Amino acid sequence: MLYFDHAATTPLYDEVYEILCQSLKEDFANPSSKHKLGSGLSKKIEQARKAILQTLDANQYQLIFTSSATESNNQVINSFKEKGKVLYYLSDHPSISVATSDEDIFLLESDNILDKLTDDISLVVLSLVNSQAGIIKDVEKITREIKEKNPNVKVLVDAVQGYGKIPYNLKGSSIDYISIAAHKIGGARGVAALIYKDDKMLKPILRGGGHENGMRSSTPATSLILGFQKACELSCTKLESNLVNTKELNIILREKLSSLHKNIEFPFEDNCSPYILCMLFKGIPSDVLLRHLEMKDVYVSSTTACSSRIKGKNPMFVGLGIEEKFHKNVLRISMSSQTTEDEVNKLINKFEEVIKEVSFLIK
Amino acid sequence: MLYFDHAATTPLYDEVYEILCQSLKEDFANPSSKHKLGSGLSKKIEQARKAILQTLDANQYQLIFTSSATESNNQVINSFKEKGKVLYYLSDHPSISVATSDEDIFLLESDNILDKLTDDISLVVLSLVNSQAGIIKDVEKITREIKEKNPNVKVLVDAVQGYGKIPYNLKGSSIDYISIAAHKIGGARGVAALIYKDDKMLKPILRGGGHENGMRSSTPATSLILGFQKACELSCTKLESNLVNTKELNIILREKLSSLHKNIEFPFEDNCSPYILCMLFKGIPSDVLLRHLEMKDVYVSSTTACSSRIKGKNPMFVGLGIEEKFHKNVLRISMSSQTTEDEVNKLINKFEEVIKEVSFLIK
Repeated sequence: MLYFDHAATTPLYDEVYEILCQSLKEDFANPSSKHKLGSGLSKKIEQARKAILQTLDANQYQLIFTSSATESNNQVINSFKEKGKVLYYLSDHPSISVATSDEDIFLLESDNILDKLTDDISLVVLSLVNSQAGIIKDVEKITREIKEKNPNVKVLVDAVQGYGKIPYNLKGSSIDYISIAAHKIGGARGVAALIYKDDKMLKPILRGGGHENGMRSSTPATSLILGFQKACELSCTKLESNLVNTKELNIILREKLSSLHKNIEFPFEDNCSPYILCMLFKGIPSDVLLRHLEMKDVYVSSTTACSSRIKGKNPMFVGLGIEEKFHKNVLRISMSSQTTEDEVNKLINKFEEVIKEVSFLIK
Repeated sequence: MLYFDHAATTPLYDEVYEILCQSLKEDFANPSSKHKLGSGLSKKIEQARKAILQTLDANQYQLIFTSSATESNNQVINSFKEKGKVLYYLSDHPSISVATSDEDIFLLESDNILDKLTDDISLVVLSLVNSQAGIIKDVEKITREIKEKNPNVKVLVDAVQGYGKIPYNLKGSSIDYISIAAHKIGGARGVAALIYKDDKMLKPILRGGGHENGMRSSTPATSLILGFQKACELSCTKLESNLVNTKELNIILREKLSSLHKNIEFPFEDNCSPYILCMLFKGIPSDVLLRHLEMKDVYVSSTTACSSRIKGKNPMFVGLGIEEKFHKNVLRISMSSQTTEDEVNKLINKFEEVIKEVSFLIK
């Protein structure tokens, strides 16, 4: 199998898998129980919280564990309902764009954000790395500029596709909220985090037992959290060497795929995460490519998994400025730190085979 | 170790553990991805959905997977905000009572619900089994009576402490919403379900990729869901024999513990789930008992884990009609289908030892 859909979700790191299997057996008690079985797990969760913040140099921040980045993003956006408008990018993940209201304001990637920063904006959402195109935003610089213009505006950074992959930390940061997810960096599906500086504006979505400092009620999923901690530590410790490798793989992919057919283009060249490679194959519907690749046990995607239900125009494509006539020709090839050069070369060979099969479709 | 806090959370069934470990390794793809790795997992999730509904004879219902029963309960209660008042019991789980508003109306266990069913009520919440006292409600009968009086009222049943433990099904039911959780029946923490008849009133809490029929966006936690399915099937298949065993264990506990000290009482005798035994030890603070038992590697609780943060009066105790002077004397001993007679006898022996150590405290 050649799996190149790591931006949708990643296999577990072996070390994370081991922790999960051990913890699922041993750490069964309820961390909220008053007895020492509970308090022992509660301590482990507190350690995980600190360890993850540490990977971001984020000692001035707090962290709550949620079930998904969708929940983390929703929690911040919901907290600002009725407090003013939300300014976001149309190319953001659906957990941002769909959670906003009709009154909120969206930007295209080509827009100048400061031009649109009117006085009625209370929250700005930025993606560290765009999940479709891989475009990296200098979220720290943009946040400073936003706050210079209007110090009352709060900023949420969706760091899901960047955290653990590209250099990023929160030392001295003026960003207010950051969301990250385990399953994009070798952790399990079902756990994510919301990192925040203070909780004056933040409201809980889930109310009940008052877990997570009152910010997220629900029995904590201890094992998932401990696996998440390990995934964060592994991803961040090896970030630089992984990045060097992935950059090389990305260059190989761009060069060799381009050489396979003149209709293959990479619309986003500059300042992109090497983990995500957005490709246009003009004249070949991506659905056809996906099916042909799939028959060879090769898995890539056209859009984000979370956008796969969209009928009609994909707002992410519009937001990214992809011409509408090419919306059906977009492919996303995404890698993880575990992707190898051998896999990349095999992928290129499979593409070559598929192109022979489908190039008759090009008019 | 003697673990008698199963109402807080249960260890995994061995079979569930095996499924989880296998699935965490194999089922890593995103079920929303369009390729066959994704659609294969999506099918498995659909099968799990049907299998769990099947255990409740609930073919006329739909089911969405959530991260916790707190989320399931919150989702229903939030859907009724601004549609009228919510009528609930003060003895309900905090994910119900805390999610309500000041305008909503609470009942004591001793109240007649029909007397309080005013025209401005839009939602009634009932617990199948009370998590503190084990009291079973005839939720089907009560729902019929409610709907006879006011057909527009919708009913949510928190079945978390009853499902898979006491006979319960939804065949011909007039109940609108039902919440269940994996981790109370040998499944993992981090997954639960909301079962509902139609979605005219129900609104999503989490918005984004439109997963779970638009009712709960987030990448599905496939492995947790498959483990949940197994936990449901195991619990429901062996429900009757487990119930017979647990009833016997409950009788042994009541009789032998009563005989240990005249101050030991069981305030809830009739129509209780045998899995939960609420006990008063007059004159001995439950904190002291918990600590002494814990030193002997014995784990029980005083209140629900989700109420462990409550300062001052515990509303569940008030709702249950426990006199305030005895609030500090409440213990909850809770069992699972995996609890053995040997463990029960050992627990009684440990209690006997502890009573010798602490009975000097009784004035």
